[in-house]
Amino acid sequence: MKKIIFLILLTGLFGVLSFAQSPMSSTYDLMPWPKEIKKNSAKFIINSDVTISINSEYSERVRNAAINFLRRLSQRTGVFLKEGFPKKNKDATIQITYESIAKLDVNCDESYTLEVSNSYIKIASKTDIGSLRALQTLLQLTKNNDTSYYFPGVIINDTPRFIWRGLMIDVSRHFQPVEVIKRNLNAMASVKMNVFHWHLTDDQGFRIESKTYPKLQELASDGLYYTQAQIKDIVVYADNLGIRVIPEIDVPGHASAILSAYPELGSNADYNYSIERYSGVFDPTLNPTLDITYEFLENLFKEITPLFPDDYFHIGGDENEGKHWSENKSISKFKAEHNLKTNHDLQTYFNIKLEKILKKQGKQLMGWDEIMTPDMPTTAVIHSWRGENEGLPNGGSLISAAKQGYQTVLSNGFYIDRMLPVEHHYTIEPIGNIELTHEERKRILGGEATMWSELVTPQTIDSRIWPRTAAIAERLWSSRTVTDVDNMKTRLKTISFQLEELDITHIRNRDVILRSMTNNQDISSLITLSKICEPLKIYARNKDGIEYKTYSPYALFADACVVDAEDASTFNSVVSNYKKEQTPALSDAILYYLRNWSTNYSNFSKLRMNPKISTLQPLSQNLSIASNILHNSIKNHNISSNELEELKHAIAILKQEFVDIELAIINNLEWLTGHCETNFKIN
Amino acid sequence: MKKIIFLILLTGLFGVLSFAQSPMSSTYDLMPWPKEIKKNSAKFIINSDVTISINSEYSERVRNAAINFLRRLSQRTGVFLKEGFPKKNKDATIQITYESIAKLDVNCDESYTLEVSNSYIKIASKTDIGSLRALQTLLQLTKNNDTSYYFPGVIINDTPRFIWRGLMIDVSRHFQPVEVIKRNLNAMASVKMNVFHWHLTDDQGFRIESKTYPKLQELASDGLYYTQAQIKDIVVYADNLGIRVIPEIDVPGHASAILSAYPELGSNADYNYSIERYSGVFDPTLNPTLDITYEFLENLFKEITPLFPDDYFHIGGDENEGKHWSENKSISKFKAEHNLKTNHDLQTYFNIKLEKILKKQGKQLMGWDEIMTPDMPTTAVIHSWRGENEGLPNGGSLISAAKQGYQTVLSNGFYIDRMLPVEHHYTIEPIGNIELTHEERKRILGGEATMWSELVTPQTIDSRIWPRTAAIAERLWSSRTVTDVDNMKTRLKTISFQLEELDITHIRNRDVILRSMTNNQDISSLITLSKICEPLKIYARNKDGIEYKTYSPYALFADACVVDAEDASTFNSVVSNYKKEQTPALSDAILYYLRNWSTNYSNFSKLRMNPKISTLQPLSQNLSIASNILHNSIKNHNISSNELEELKHAIAILKQEFVDIELAIINNLEWLTGHCETNFKIN
Repeated sequence: MKKIIFLILLTGLFGVLSFAQSPMSSTYDLMPWPKEIKKNSAKFIINSDVTISINSEYSERVRNAAINFLRRLSQRTGVFLKEGFPKKNKDATIQITYESIAKLDVNCDESYTLEVSNSYIKIASKTDIGSLRALQTLLQLTKNNDTSYYFPGVIINDTPRFIWRGLMIDVSRHFQPVEVIKRNLNAMASVKMNVFHWHLTDDQGFRIESKTYPKLQELASDGLYYTQAQIKDIVVYADNLGIRVIPEIDVPGHASAILSAYPELGSNADYNYSIERYSGVFDPTLNPTLDITYEFLENLFKEITPLFPDDYFHIGGDENEGKHWSENKSISKFKAEHNLKTNHDLQTYFNIKLEKILKKQGKQLMGWDEIMTPDMPTTAVIHSWRGENEGLPNGGSLISAAKQGYQTVLSNGFYIDRMLPVEHHYTIEPIGNIELTHEERKRILGGEATMWSELVTPQTIDSRIWPRTAAIAERLWSSRTVTDVDNMKTRLKTISFQLEELDITHIRNRDVILRSMTNNQDISSLITLSKICEPLKIYARNKDGIEYKTYSPYALFADACVVDAEDASTFNSVVSNYKKEQTPALSDAILYYLRNWSTNYSNFSKLRMNPKISTLQPLSQNLSIASNILHNSIKNHNISSNELEELKHAIAILKQEFVDIELAIINNLEWLTGHCETNFKIN
Repeated sequence: MKKIIFLILLTGLFGVLSFAQSPMSSTYDLMPWPKEIKKNSAKFIINSDVTISINSEYSERVRNAAINFLRRLSQRTGVFLKEGFPKKNKDATIQITYESIAKLDVNCDESYTLEVSNSYIKIASKTDIGSLRALQTLLQLTKNNDTSYYFPGVIINDTPRFIWRGLMIDVSRHFQPVEVIKRNLNAMASVKMNVFHWHLTDDQGFRIESKTYPKLQELASDGLYYTQAQIKDIVVYADNLGIRVIPEIDVPGHASAILSAYPELGSNADYNYSIERYSGVFDPTLNPTLDITYEFLENLFKEITPLFPDDYFHIGGDENEGKHWSENKSISKFKAEHNLKTNHDLQTYFNIKLEKILKKQGKQLMGWDEIMTPDMPTTAVIHSWRGENEGLPNGGSLISAAKQGYQTVLSNGFYIDRMLPVEHHYTIEPIGNIELTHEERKRILGGEATMWSELVTPQTIDSRIWPRTAAIAERLWSSRTVTDVDNMKTRLKTISFQLEELDITHIRNRDVILRSMTNNQDISSLITLSKICEPLKIYARNKDGIEYKTYSPYALFADACVVDAEDASTFNSVVSNYKKEQTPALSDAILYYLRNWSTNYSNFSKLRMNPKISTLQPLSQNLSIASNILHNSIKNHNISSNELEELKHAIAILKQEFVDIELAIINNLEWLTGHCETNFKIN
């Protein structure tokens, strides 16, 4: 229990930071933070008499949301509600009123007001979607004391900053079954996200059933695809949560899977197309000079677009390096004939044809920012993903797209698969200080977190999406002034564990992996390590895309570890403050962690070894050696030359990569080493 | 880590028991235990070169099973396999051969042989189903040392004792989504179960889409039902695992849901039929005297039976108390006209009509044992569920059904929702010492575990089904001589945690519930309690069926607790041995647990209280008081009068029910109290 004492103490130390933006953001664990919130002294007690009335035109969405609200409230509080469904009479304690049923699109009004008083709660909104958002806010307001659960008195007036708050899930690199999608839709709705971008095809698999071109699922999916019935089911499910679904069929590149089924559409007649098992950017590309290519796409889109009622349709368009185009003589000839100088020009030719095909189906074309070439019509929507790493200016193409007349959506900075800390994403400001006209600003629709799935399975994907995506959801919903990282992190802790109510597995599956690793031995020593280790960042885990295949094991130690490792975050904060002022409280906190790590190897070494665990042995052993020396040195204010040498040796080993993870406290262990050497060295 | 030392010590103490049935049953964690197993000195190393060849006619089942085998093997061992799919060439290291593709029915041959040598593994079977069973056995054989994983050299010759090894899941009381069914099918397959009995309708909901009678799902399901596409998907999924699917439409009783949609089929014109929210046996019953009832059932069965290729169709037929029949004058008149003396006779009249309707659809009628009346044709299959508790002889109607010429399946003794310890189910011997003719024995098809879902949600159902159902699977597969309970429990520990690989949530969801209960505080004190507390047994939790409704909260402490609570089981074994001989080792083990419990309240009391936790306060406090006094008394060989009084007072409190759980160590705490009083009292 000592840990708890330290954590209380640490909250005290850092607590002052929390009041920077709104005094109330440390009182309520709301995320995204609402536009306006006023507190009053009321308290609405949650007891068995809580009921809901829906006072407007029937909305399947609101009815479902109200039922789910009652279920979650009852499960969370343990209160046995008398009424499990919305009341038919209009005399309930929670009153919901909206003016109209929304069409889900980029003009949808999601605003709402929420009033909590002693005896009733009123939700009012322009559309039924606003009422859904309000119910999520209300659930987040749940508080308790010793004897009861209650909603604190507030008046909230809320509306989103951006209309497009999305999550993309790549189901091609690793297929994600229906339930993975559904639970993530629930989680999205809980933080008011409203766009699910479904990356359905890529080199590694074509994941949607086609009745027109059945070889797509038969030959290009390994049997892992969604039936059209499942697609429809998910689209309805999302609609009920107020979430739009944007499908992506990625062309003309990323086409290995399509071409393994229909090689005649390829740009290289001699190539042996097959489903790709590795990760990366590959050569197989549709041939944009053939009529059959457009016939195929038109038929396919004609079949698929009716499954997705949304106005937008994503055609990918990214990372086509045009190698097979350049190598193909008839394509070169075609380019010359059509005055297409570069492969970029040829791809624009292709995109413009697609734009027309989609328009016939009533769809607006959206694509990754490579499609933004000079000739591309401004009816296209530019999905801004490239940034400094890809040779573009910081912030990518978002602003220039808007200025050039395109609607645009930001994903640069929101690549959650890069395994970067939550503040990296949270501190992205999409517009910054750029001056925009009203029209230009309107074209910036919002943003999307992108979950590329090279290294995730259904077992681990939730821990890569959550909780960081909730912070992105706040960035896209809340005012630009809501920027206090420490306060966000405090609220995120609550929001994160509440996601468990929605079956999100990001917390529970760590121990599942560790139990599997140890063959059901005591996992406590591995838990201790997992709280300070993080998976390698920015694609360093899978160098050149050839360390892992689709079917490689993803139940390794790195898969049990997460970004923003719990103890590492706290320890690093403590040391960071200790660097400024070496108070006894901070010193005690550091000693607490060091003692914990110094004894951990004795625990670890009792495990019966196996090949999965033994790779962690040098990490565990040297962590204990280093922690032990640092602990004694800081405690006793001395360190011998021998100890220092042993410490530095251990630190050097700890700086290495261990089985695809990095020790997230290494910099501060190293700083403490220097600190001890400078201040405490005795001989 | 002291605990581990004790557990090793305890294994030593009890280990000798494990050799009662087969010396090898303590070497391999196989479940169900195979018919014959011979050990050799070979060792097949699991490295990246492991491959599979399927040398027989194409079987979707075997191909899927082989792919799943490779995935699980890779995840479990961390080995990066070069080949993720069965090889096209026949030169793989694992060779699978079968003679034919099976039709899944009660004549299906599931036997197989499995040979593991140093360099190859051979699986051979009569049917493709036998090969599926062999792959599960092989996976269970996985072992490891410090440096590698391997399969130990064995020759196994295996075949099941009973052809019907089922699990029934009730999806009416609480709906269970597709993924719950699928993961449980995977778990069933892993212990070679082969019948999924799907209890699709009951008073609390009609869970299958009907296009002929759409009001069934529209008015009688709360929107929670399977579409026909989902049913088909699950049936194919099960078939791929070698599992038959038997649907149950429960009639004429348990019909509240049906009658809420089609009240004109009811036996009481004045009754206000609605979906039932409570549990129990209710009056709404189909009217067996109306032509429209049979018209309805014939049309419904005509629509539904094609979804289920199996030969058998379950019509329920249980617990019809005939109250509405007796009260209805025109039904009485009908009985008199047709010379039907009792309501049982009337139900037989109904069943015989159903039997004919089903025969037209090519289906054989199956029903709960109430259908076994003198006039019932022997083409019906009797599902034996009632036993001593329901006024029948122990073992129920199984033997008498077989002797009367009926095929029959046993569920009496396999009611896993009664929350009884695993040995209760494991020690059921279906046939016992009864002498049966060959024909009679053949009619005893096997048995089914039954998971009634009054008190379970998708979050908790797995922890009620598993791991106990694996022991039932062994009872139904293995020889009747495989009866060593301690050895079964040892193997079950491994089998249980391996179910996590299949997404079974029985272990991981405990902490989810405890985190929710505490609002994300330190749950260690609650974990300690949950390891010695068990949910109330034999329906005591929901007295008269009116404490809980369908939508009551099921994320309470009782829902985090499981049968065969881990620490209680060990402690009770230790005390049971200590009663025979008070060795220092046993005494130390007892002291270890008592010390642990005595300090737990200090930990518990640091929690910020809320209404969900505070109900546990007297349990936690008195457990610590009692444990502390017992600990000191046993350690020091003395106890004062005051201490004894305080101890007895605490024990008296601990004997009470706490929020639907019971303290599973209470009898032994009480015994130790008496023991201390008798032996150590000092004044």
